[in-house]
Amino acid sequence: MALVEVTRLRRMVREILHAHDVPERAARLQSDLLIAAELRGHPSHGVFRLRRIVERLRAGVADPVATGRHDWAGTALLRVDGEQGLGPVVAMSALDAVRERARSTGVAAAVIRHNNHLGMLSWYVEQVALAGQVAIATCTSEALVHPWGGRRPMIGTNPIAIGVPAQPHPLVLDMATGLVSMGKIHDYANRGLPLPPGWALDAAGEPTTDARAATAGSIAPFGEAKGYALALTLEVLVATLTASETGTAVRGTLDSDQPSSKGDLFIVFDRPPGAVVESIGAYLQAVRDTEPTGDAPVQVPGDRSRLRSGLTAEQGVEVADEVWQHLETLHDAARTHVVADSATTPADSHGTIPERAESERP
Amino acid sequence: MALVEVTRLRRMVREILHAHDVPERAARLQSDLLIAAELRGHPSHGVFRLRRIVERLRAGVADPVATGRHDWAGTALLRVDGEQGLGPVVAMSALDAVRERARSTGVAAAVIRHNNHLGMLSWYVEQVALAGQVAIATCTSEALVHPWGGRRPMIGTNPIAIGVPAQPHPLVLDMATGLVSMGKIHDYANRGLPLPPGWALDAAGEPTTDARAATAGSIAPFGEAKGYALALTLEVLVATLTASETGTAVRGTLDSDQPSSKGDLFIVFDRPPGAVVESIGAYLQAVRDTEPTGDAPVQVPGDRSRLRSGLTAEQGVEVADEVWQHLETLHDAARTHVVADSATTPADSHGTIPERAESERP
Repeated sequence: MALVEVTRLRRMVREILHAHDVPERAARLQSDLLIAAELRGHPSHGVFRLRRIVERLRAGVADPVATGRHDWAGTALLRVDGEQGLGPVVAMSALDAVRERARSTGVAAAVIRHNNHLGMLSWYVEQVALAGQVAIATCTSEALVHPWGGRRPMIGTNPIAIGVPAQPHPLVLDMATGLVSMGKIHDYANRGLPLPPGWALDAAGEPTTDARAATAGSIAPFGEAKGYALALTLEVLVATLTASETGTAVRGTLDSDQPSSKGDLFIVFDRPPGAVVESIGAYLQAVRDTEPTGDAPVQVPGDRSRLRSGLTAEQGVEVADEVWQHLETLHDAARTHVVADSATTPADSHGTIPERAESERP
Repeated sequence: MALVEVTRLRRMVREILHAHDVPERAARLQSDLLIAAELRGHPSHGVFRLRRIVERLRAGVADPVATGRHDWAGTALLRVDGEQGLGPVVAMSALDAVRERARSTGVAAAVIRHNNHLGMLSWYVEQVALAGQVAIATCTSEALVHPWGGRRPMIGTNPIAIGVPAQPHPLVLDMATGLVSMGKIHDYANRGLPLPPGWALDAAGEPTTDARAATAGSIAPFGEAKGYALALTLEVLVATLTASETGTAVRGTLDSDQPSSKGDLFIVFDRPPGAVVESIGAYLQAVRDTEPTGDAPVQVPGDRSRLRSGLTAEQGVEVADEVWQHLETLHDAARTHVVADSATTPADSHGTIPERAESERP
């Protein structure tokens, strides 16, 4: 493990993105997102992802400057063709538009296709909730999850995130509908550990505790039959609204050369009254104060990440050796590139992405 | 068990409601909802509920004629004060308004408070999906579910339902976020059966398999920590948007004399293109066709209810003896009432509730 200072890691990611023709603000959004995942203790959505982003930029299936084409399908419904732009760049542009629109419509939604990987959904909904609005986000992804009672992967790990303003902290839910992530299965495989029973099937559709075998198979949905029903319904909901692909036809977040064919959905409600926001804070505290069954206190969604985030920001980010080495290699190449091309460093053309102060970062 | 013909049961429920000053169309909506639950094999949401509805009408905490006061908080967001009207009457009036609005806004939502029990949510979202639009519905309810790792009930069984048009049948999800319903726990208690481990805690917050002890305790959330996070977030989302109560302050669906203080949320998206609806049908069929792990074929949400519904409509509804006896008593009283008051049978004043043909019923 390398222990890296947060500001250094952030700068490295930005410089690597600049070297691949990503303009300043877009690079900041993408790096903020990756670093936020590291801070919250979700390395699977952190700088580890940069390798794939760079490969996709090089292969032309991620566009460094696209922010998405906006088309209002109704007063409150924004259709976005992401034009294969970077996930957070296209999504924040759409989210900014629907957040503004929701002020007059009360509720507004963005349906996005042809967009790259969103990364950690909590990052989006937390920003909306911190600004006093309510957000729901969900998206599809490659089929890795088997139907309840079925042998093959047919459903994405389709996460859902919800952010609601509350005092002193917003409530932030962010959960995948797979029982575990494929990243975790790979991690068990790399460390030679057996999987707990019930996590996965092998390529033949048989239950397995062999992590290596599971990487070629499928993951169980969380919550048995109900979780399966929710996962499948999110797949169908998102694909229907965004006119994107379903099941095994979804591409573009686990490979380096296929155009993205998944969909993203954001719903924003305008600000609830201040009195409500305060009473929700009191309710959440009452939930935390529920007498626990064991030694650990009851937590509410977002508590653990927030706690972790503060600690990591002080102590630095632990980056796996392999990820760190690759990051250093990319960064060395980027510095050479920047020096060589300094006259043609990409201009900032992202007029639709608003400036975000450091202090606004979740 | 009494086996009762569907048309007879429907007529009885309507006549009982008429006798309690519920106008014709409102009585039809409420009875359609209860009968639909029976047809789908969910007796906990069926005619069993009529006893409480009648008690609430008599106690003045359910208003037989109210359809809800509508107030557009934005072009696409309808705030509804249910004025303690009947659940399906207030909800369908709101849903009709947002369905119409979504045609021009693309997406629209209704946030409802002071409304009585919605009953089975699938009934609402399926009607929207059959008409070609997409619906999401969720609501809060009395605290019966304990936080993950906590000893006391702090969260409702907060269901979520989603209906999406597809060929040949819409996809209809309807799931509570409790692991099981309190109705099921009561059923185990009545039959003297032990609960499976993990379902419930007793009044002291200790795990129990004694169903009787569990009725005074709390139910586990479905899906362990993730299901808990979703259940709690739905509670907070709905309470925030509707400015209604949370946790142990929620009243009015399990008692006979408290005004309702829970909230309901409906989100409607306008019709997706026909080509998308067809491709979703093909995907759902591919999911059903996934090679099963056992003998049972893979199902998608709504399959079982639809199958069951057709059978029950032919064979009649099985009503538990106690429920049937009470229904007959209510019905006998209603007939007397109708004969006595025939000159003052309530007029139909529900202009905002559209006529619904028998054939449109799900």
